Amino acid sequence: MIIVMEPGASREKIQAVVERVQSLGLGAHPVEGEERSIVGVVGTPLPPTLDEMLEVYPGVERVVRITKKFKLSGWDFHPKKTIIKVLDFEIGGEELTLIAGPCSVESEEQTISTAHAVKAAGAKALRGGAYKPRTSPYEFRGLGKRGLEILAQARAETGLAIITEVMPPNDVEEVREYTDIFQIGARNSQNYYLLEEVGKAGKPVMLKRGLSMTIEEWLLAAEYVLSQGNPDVMFCERGIRTYETQTRNTLDVAAVPVVQKLSHLPILVDPSHASGKRPYVGALALAGVAAGADGLMIEVHPNPDHALSDGNQSLNFDEFAELTPRIAAVAQAVGRKLPIPTPV
Amino acid sequence: MIIVMEPGASREKIQAVVERVQSLGLGAHPVEGEERSIVGVVGTPLPPTLDEMLEVYPGVERVVRITKKFKLSGWDFHPKKTIIKVLDFEIGGEELTLIAGPCSVESEEQTISTAHAVKAAGAKALRGGAYKPRTSPYEFRGLGKRGLEILAQARAETGLAIITEVMPPNDVEEVREYTDIFQIGARNSQNYYLLEEVGKAGKPVMLKRGLSMTIEEWLLAAEYVLSQGNPDVMFCERGIRTYETQTRNTLDVAAVPVVQKLSHLPILVDPSHASGKRPYVGALALAGVAAGADGLMIEVHPNPDHALSDGNQSLNFDEFAELTPRIAAVAQAVGRKLPIPTPV
Amino acid sequence: MIIVMEPGASREKIQAVVERVQSLGLGAHPVEGEERSIVGVVGTPLPPTLDEMLEVYPGVERVVRITKKFKLSGWDFHPKKTIIKVLDFEIGGEELTLIAGPCSVESEEQTISTAHAVKAAGAKALRGGAYKPRTSPYEFRGLGKRGLEILAQARAETGLAIITEVMPPNDVEEVREYTDIFQIGARNSQNYYLLEEVGKAGKPVMLKRGLSMTIEEWLLAAEYVLSQGNPDVMFCERGIRTYETQTRNTLDVAAVPVVQKLSHLPILVDPSHASGKRPYVGALALAGVAAGADGLMIEVHPNPDHALSDGNQSLNFDEFAELTPRIAAVAQAVGRKLPIPTPV
Amino acid sequence: MIIVMEPGASREKIQAVVERVQSLGLGAHPVEGEERSIVGVVGTPLPPTLDEMLEVYPGVERVVRITKKFKLSGWDFHPKKTIIKVLDFEIGGEELTLIAGPCSVESEEQTISTAHAVKAAGAKALRGGAYKPRTSPYEFRGLGKRGLEILAQARAETGLAIITEVMPPNDVEEVREYTDIFQIGARNSQNYYLLEEVGKAGKPVMLKRGLSMTIEEWLLAAEYVLSQGNPDVMFCERGIRTYETQTRNTLDVAAVPVVQKLSHLPILVDPSHASGKRPYVGALALAGVAAGADGLMIEVHPNPDHALSDGNQSLNFDEFAELTPRIAAVAQAVGRKLPIPTPV
Repeated sequence: MIIVMEPGASREKIQAVVERVQSLGLGAHPVEGEERSIVGVVGTPLPPTLDEMLEVYPGVERVVRITKKFKLSGWDFHPKKTIIKVLDFEIGGEELTLIAGPCSVESEEQTISTAHAVKAAGAKALRGGAYKPRTSPYEFRGLGKRGLEILAQARAETGLAIITEVMPPNDVEEVREYTDIFQIGARNSQNYYLLEEVGKAGKPVMLKRGLSMTIEEWLLAAEYVLSQGNPDVMFCERGIRTYETQTRNTLDVAAVPVVQKLSHLPILVDPSHASGKRPYVGALALAGVAAGADGLMIEVHPNPDHALSDGNQSLNFDEFAELTPRIAAVAQAVGRKLPIPTPV
Repeated sequence: MIIVMEPGASREKIQAVVERVQSLGLGAHPVEGEERSIVGVVGTPLPPTLDEMLEVYPGVERVVRITKKFKLSGWDFHPKKTIIKVLDFEIGGEELTLIAGPCSVESEEQTISTAHAVKAAGAKALRGGAYKPRTSPYEFRGLGKRGLEILAQARAETGLAIITEVMPPNDVEEVREYTDIFQIGARNSQNYYLLEEVGKAGKPVMLKRGLSMTIEEWLLAAEYVLSQGNPDVMFCERGIRTYETQTRNTLDVAAVPVVQKLSHLPILVDPSHASGKRPYVGALALAGVAAGADGLMIEVHPNPDHALSDGNQSLNFDEFAELTPRIAAVAQAVGRKLPIPTPV
Repeated sequence: MIIVMEPGASREKIQAVVERVQSLGLGAHPVEGEERSIVGVVGTPLPPTLDEMLEVYPGVERVVRITKKFKLSGWDFHPKKTIIKVLDFEIGGEELTLIAGPCSVESEEQTISTAHAVKAAGAKALRGGAYKPRTSPYEFRGLGKRGLEILAQARAETGLAIITEVMPPNDVEEVREYTDIFQIGARNSQNYYLLEEVGKAGKPVMLKRGLSMTIEEWLLAAEYVLSQGNPDVMFCERGIRTYETQTRNTLDVAAVPVVQKLSHLPILVDPSHASGKRPYVGALALAGVAAGADGLMIEVHPNPDHALSDGNQSLNFDEFAELTPRIAAVAQAVGRKLPIPTPV
Repeated sequence: MIIVMEPGASREKIQAVVERVQSLGLGAHPVEGEERSIVGVVGTPLPPTLDEMLEVYPGVERVVRITKKFKLSGWDFHPKKTIIKVLDFEIGGEELTLIAGPCSVESEEQTISTAHAVKAAGAKALRGGAYKPRTSPYEFRGLGKRGLEILAQARAETGLAIITEVMPPNDVEEVREYTDIFQIGARNSQNYYLLEEVGKAGKPVMLKRGLSMTIEEWLLAAEYVLSQGNPDVMFCERGIRTYETQTRNTLDVAAVPVVQKLSHLPILVDPSHASGKRPYVGALALAGVAAGADGLMIEVHPNPDHALSDGNQSLNFDEFAELTPRIAAVAQAVGRKLPIPTPV
């Protein structure tokens, strides 16, 4: 850590900073420059908020942290890319992972038919919400446990893995019985109790990015899960909030290569939430794959116009079946694969 | 609700929209215009996501919702401003409510001494975190139940009301035993299970604004609490996330008059989190009061440079005592009051 | 246009709105609803700010504009996609347009060598700044007219088209003598005098998106050029400003399909400015093409580490030559083409 | 400047960085740390983009600039607050400066009557646009030179100073003949040719903040004016663009104390553009003054509902006359003054 003093900061002020650093058992090395002095801090571990603490000391202009705040999610201590095994497939390997399904589980028929349709088009996992976070309390909030049972039934019939959202920490145990992957939604991306709870649950976790979460905060959220002993964390970029209103969110497609540079964990893209509008889902799916994403999560519904939630951003079966070969083509162009089953 | 069709949308497309609306038991009135047609929708209740559902119908250009999504927090059904009674004072009345205290409860001495100091300077309530949400799992996360006990002791000694944050829904019962006001933090502002739980707990609730929450979403979060029968909700503007990095967040001071125009619930301002830097806390506090806020929440610590969290944005006792008369002066200038005890 | 009145707005207030609309020679049709009334406005042309004017009338809750503000850039009056001819190639057709070159023209050798290199790798046009907008007045600001001469020489030697930025309106004439395409930079995207001036200059114009420009504002900026009789306008998405700091800007890759849905004009992507960092340029280039962009603009420099500007986001010759076949592969996957010359 | 190397960066990589720095005539001092090494750079002047250049060197993790990029606008070389003299008053002193007037000059009568009204209520300067930047080319764009003449006439009749916007650099001379203060609008805040031109024109300049301009960029824009020898620059915070849509922009009220900490130049607040809605103008005006602004710029129109531009955010005469005593009260509460003439 480097502490940059203001021009002309007095020796007393510099000394006060040095003493504070030393009082924490760290080394402090002041260096006088032409315009201003700096104080180098060495030793570990640095208190996580030391920079903020020192930033308001008299005479201090700026504090620069040199070491990264995240450890387990970074490459430094884990030089090999993480590949997550789920049922009979892998997330993070050469093959893209396609996750698809309805926003909400609405009925057995809706869910099972969707499972068959998305599997035929190349999906490996079925998404579906049993517990739904809704901006307004007056909206449909999911079937709850009955939804989980329907998802399990869909897995039994199709062999697809299941991914579903969990919200209150004490639901983790129940959801764990049914799901193959826990989804942590954007609104709960900094719900740290929940993150620790799924960190203990021993099943893979998908962390959606919060609406205005920085990539650094995202990696730190992953630390909460990883530090509980669960190594199987994947990210999902689903758009961030900006001033632009033509799309529901703004897909930060650069998050894909940035996360891959900073972390060994897989990253997927959700073009449905990112765009919020059906006509743009395809373009964003292809963009995500071209940028290097390890997979996609796409909303599919048998009859989007009658969906109880997110119908406006869901594809119907035909649209999805038309899209996946295009995804496969782009995947191949960037050295990845998306096998699509041959129709019987 | 009004459905705006694309120019030249065919009669078949208009008819499909009309039939979909009627299938929901609502009335649909198409009107032909020179350039384009519209379809008016009448009847209640409108399904909350009807607009999104219709927005992607063929031939539909845009859907405009006329009625507001929030009911209990708006003026329509509650034409009188809400005044919340806590112990012996009121929030939302002529008198400003000053809440102050440390970011985290660190020790008995730190908390009790702060309580005495902020009371002497005009505060009515003591803030202090017993359970702390932290971006990194490696930071100090609060004293837990011991922190709550210390807060209760501070109340016993000073008569100040207590406000503290609650996070997992099943902590609500424990926190309820100690606190006078529940604080819902920015990161949990859309944690709907938690909102409902405090909605049932029968004590006032302060809703901090999420980092990138719209004001409409904020009012809808309040609906979660209100719809459980708890009428005592207050808002707290604490800055939103923008591209500017000179301050930790950007205080949206306009949120004060906007919320007051849309809602009967009180709104406070937190200049400490909004600025994130001690030298700007005073200016933002005064700005919030001048804009019409019903109160302020300010971080105060006996020795900010040694605080375990948020030291860089905390005032020390002298700084706080120097600030409150200035707040009182601005309050008076805008027709409010902030009584400051006469020193003994 | 539809004017939504507040619930319980009096007949007098409705009447005042009706009279104001009629005073402008437009028709006003009030309709009473159960909860609130609306007033429909018919007739053309609507004053562009009529909505803002009426929005603050007593009793008015909201005003909804039905017709779009942009005309010439939209599909309504121009149902065929615009293809722009430049020298011997087309922008907006099946073939992708690759534009490459240094941020700034620094010397004859730097520019000519870059021109040869990018042509060999598949580029059709050479970019290069002769007049550079710089955030600080103390930075390198370009070679001026000498830079234009060097660009013209590069065209003479390679056959590449030239694109360069123009800033003050009265530079348009000089720049016109040398360039094949005018570039309007992000900082000048709402410099309306400049837009009109290039609208009169009879050569194609590339409009970069402003740092926080909405897509609607972008289309309206194009109206300034189009309304002067110049039909050859193309857009260039180069990232918008958000809270994320890992990249210089945030590439709004969804802008590609959104612009294509709203407008017949071509759109390109600039992955260099969007990312601001060399390691991410490739991923964003591929993402842009996958999303459907009509071309790319990429910064290339013989020795980026010694560039006078933007070195950190420029590719060297080898990196560019390695990237273009990957671009061509993705182009083919989405039904486009990028022919790369066979090495001699 | 400090160059932070990646953990385990080889000696060769460190050496390459050192040599590059030395090749620029600067000193480079490598320091080995436990986890990673750093290289300190000393000497002046540092090339303005040196940090970006080095940031992508192999083995470099981050580059930290220690010295500020702005010189003339900062306190380092100008330790006394700038007070700008205009006609018979001062901007930046104890007395607040109130600027008011219509968005656009529409007619002699509208302008003169407004001038009398705002003077009577306490204004020292009259604002009014003769050349208007408009998002759409189909909107009213000002009276041009006739507008300037009307403004001059208003000054002659009332003694108010005049402030008006200038856009193309070669309009500066014409506008200079009429105005007392040049206004640089938000859309032209990084139009560097224009900034230099007004820097040469010898009259005070008000720099409005760009829609998504950082405070550092704003100070650098001031450098363009100051470096041409014109010391009389003032800032005007008028709201930045965020995701929130309840107001036209988001007033960054913290910009007031931040600018005052970084710069000796005065700063004003424009609550009209910041809110975009008449009902919120008053609250934001008071907030700006409470935060320490040196003045306000407020839109006033004899009949806002018939204004040709910005009517929705303009106050009428009565509203303005009712507001200024409240501003004066808040000014007094924070140790400033706003004298309001006694009605005759």
